[in-house]
Amino acid sequence: MLEISKKAQEMPLSAVRKLVPFSDAAEKRGVKVYHLNIGQPDVFAPKEALNAVKQNTLNLVSYPHSAGNASYRAGLAKYYNSVGIDVTVSDMIVTTGGSEALIFAFMICLNQGDEVIVTEPFYTNYRAFARWADVTLKPVSSGIPMDFTLPPVSAFEKAITPKTKAILLCNPSNPTGYVYTKEELESLGALVKKHNLYLFADEVYRDFLYADKPFYSCMQLKGVEQNVVLIDSASKRYSLCGVRIGAIVSRNKDVMAAALRFAQSRLCSPAYGQIAAEGALNTPPEYFTGVRAEYRRRRDYMIGALNKIEGVHSPMPEGAFYTVTQFPVDDCDKFAQWLLESFEYEKQTVMIAPASGFYVTPGGGRNEARVAYVLKVEDLEKAMAILEIALKQYPGRTV
Amino acid sequence: MLEISKKAQEMPLSAVRKLVPFSDAAEKRGVKVYHLNIGQPDVFAPKEALNAVKQNTLNLVSYPHSAGNASYRAGLAKYYNSVGIDVTVSDMIVTTGGSEALIFAFMICLNQGDEVIVTEPFYTNYRAFARWADVTLKPVSSGIPMDFTLPPVSAFEKAITPKTKAILLCNPSNPTGYVYTKEELESLGALVKKHNLYLFADEVYRDFLYADKPFYSCMQLKGVEQNVVLIDSASKRYSLCGVRIGAIVSRNKDVMAAALRFAQSRLCSPAYGQIAAEGALNTPPEYFTGVRAEYRRRRDYMIGALNKIEGVHSPMPEGAFYTVTQFPVDDCDKFAQWLLESFEYEKQTVMIAPASGFYVTPGGGRNEARVAYVLKVEDLEKAMAILEIALKQYPGRTV
Repeated sequence: MLEISKKAQEMPLSAVRKLVPFSDAAEKRGVKVYHLNIGQPDVFAPKEALNAVKQNTLNLVSYPHSAGNASYRAGLAKYYNSVGIDVTVSDMIVTTGGSEALIFAFMICLNQGDEVIVTEPFYTNYRAFARWADVTLKPVSSGIPMDFTLPPVSAFEKAITPKTKAILLCNPSNPTGYVYTKEELESLGALVKKHNLYLFADEVYRDFLYADKPFYSCMQLKGVEQNVVLIDSASKRYSLCGVRIGAIVSRNKDVMAAALRFAQSRLCSPAYGQIAAEGALNTPPEYFTGVRAEYRRRRDYMIGALNKIEGVHSPMPEGAFYTVTQFPVDDCDKFAQWLLESFEYEKQTVMIAPASGFYVTPGGGRNEARVAYVLKVEDLEKAMAILEIALKQYPGRTV
Repeated sequence: MLEISKKAQEMPLSAVRKLVPFSDAAEKRGVKVYHLNIGQPDVFAPKEALNAVKQNTLNLVSYPHSAGNASYRAGLAKYYNSVGIDVTVSDMIVTTGGSEALIFAFMICLNQGDEVIVTEPFYTNYRAFARWADVTLKPVSSGIPMDFTLPPVSAFEKAITPKTKAILLCNPSNPTGYVYTKEELESLGALVKKHNLYLFADEVYRDFLYADKPFYSCMQLKGVEQNVVLIDSASKRYSLCGVRIGAIVSRNKDVMAAALRFAQSRLCSPAYGQIAAEGALNTPPEYFTGVRAEYRRRRDYMIGALNKIEGVHSPMPEGAFYTVTQFPVDDCDKFAQWLLESFEYEKQTVMIAPASGFYVTPGGGRNEARVAYVLKVEDLEKAMAILEIALKQYPGRTV
């Protein structure tokens, strides 16, 4: 018998996609499913991006440079400079989505068996990237009881072992929506410096901020310039998830030289996606003002509505477009599946992402789910009403 | 000091791109460089592909399905059926180029330390993918003295060890242009069956055939349906290298289930690229007739011209758009660099890919280079004339 590899056996099913067969089945039965499970924005992409692709004049689609088109990288450097991140073109390589940037960072900076400390709950696909690179995620708790704030330095120090090589932080956080303060990040920077660790900063939600709190990037930390590796993406910023354009950014020359070797091995990132992402750099500021106002409205409505439901609790997220919510149920994996398989209200139901996949601690997030506010307020109103009714009927209700 | 990983240290520089800084410098000096080093076709892509992208009506670019858009996969299944490969939609996953298909195949089928037998010379980036997956390439010789034919089964059996898990074959071959016969492939199939190995069939040049010899796919082999994993790509077929759309195809359900988990971890392949590749499925047959005639002209001219140069020898390739050529020089790495750095004729020079990067056997391919016939005949004429003059002047000439 031919066998698949240990790595392939251990590669997890995506926590946000594993219930898709159940939602497909519900939709086949004629049930409308409100998708609060995925971070798929419904806002239009800037026309500067869409038109750049529509008006392209390519007669054939050649391989772009392995590090990314020179013109796009130059534009990207200007963008970073404009948001206070002091880097040059040679500090960045265009990647095939933020996903590839993370895979590169893990593979370049970590040896097999090394440990990465990550605040928990965390973006579920970090588990998959850890399998790609054969490394271990070590969680430090940053959940609902802490309002998702940064765990104290002592919690990180407790998690450090001789195998610890990096800390991975998502800011603004997917899935919690928390935005770390400058003070929190400075304490983390000092820790990284003290223990000589890499700091992987996943900042793909940088533009989605709803509190009057300035955004501070890990790339702005002093004294750890060689330690920080920024993971970025055009996906969320411009509603261009499908173009698959991200970036790995670091001032560490060894890391970037290795990133180029990895980049050459897969030849290049998508040409049309780079055209879209380069066009998107010309998006006027009003676009973001509008998008931010829209998401703030959605957030304010949805968090308010969730907290009004008996037994439900969500902290108020300050960024991104998710929250992790506590539900009065025995097990959110069961509840989420039940919503799709056994429940409907006026031919409608709701899909949420059980939080268990956002934890590696056994049992973590059992009565929690990630809920995304990526739908219009009218749709969110319907979804919240349905959720409230569902919770009353769910047999595994705990309060 | 922060260190990069062992894997990153061992990740090779791409053999076809490592001389790019020298060609950039030559072009900066005002020297025109004829690029025979890369497989970058200059023929136009079918308008069906280009127009599909120009006329797209997306308002935002969502994540396609992790396995690929349903409509594209359905079209791809029809394409395979039309070329005699009997597969269904569930046997294939759309990948981000053939590169990702190979990375998936290696990571899914092989454990760390496993061995893959490969005919040598082979596509240089296989070395990089072996590093991604921490596996070892074991070469069997299939070079110029053998006219690039399949090594005898005994040579493969000699290379098999308890760690051997797969054979990797590129057909038509990059870099040699050889097209394997049905008989050769059947003998390989029997071997694969006898030793219970995976057979990775890289057939991305399937449409580039110049001899009146039918193409036989490893997917058509009987009795090894569970062993064969097809690597495919839209890049060369439609002059769409930059769209980054490929496919991994296998009837082995365990392999495909694992491929979906890997595919989910990086979310999806590029949306615009899938639109282009789906449009390309409507390319009329005349397009390929024209492209094949053009490449045949280029091949006939270039191989003839190469063999007329004193001391130069190339077998006649039957497919793809490369050949491996023997040069009367001490070391093709030095010669290729000298061409860019120290030589010019009427402000022109030629870039070739030293073959050493296409071998893992120490010293293999030292006086050989991969030469691509991806330029118009007029340009190839100039390039060959320049090459002949250069060989007369090169200080390391051996005959």
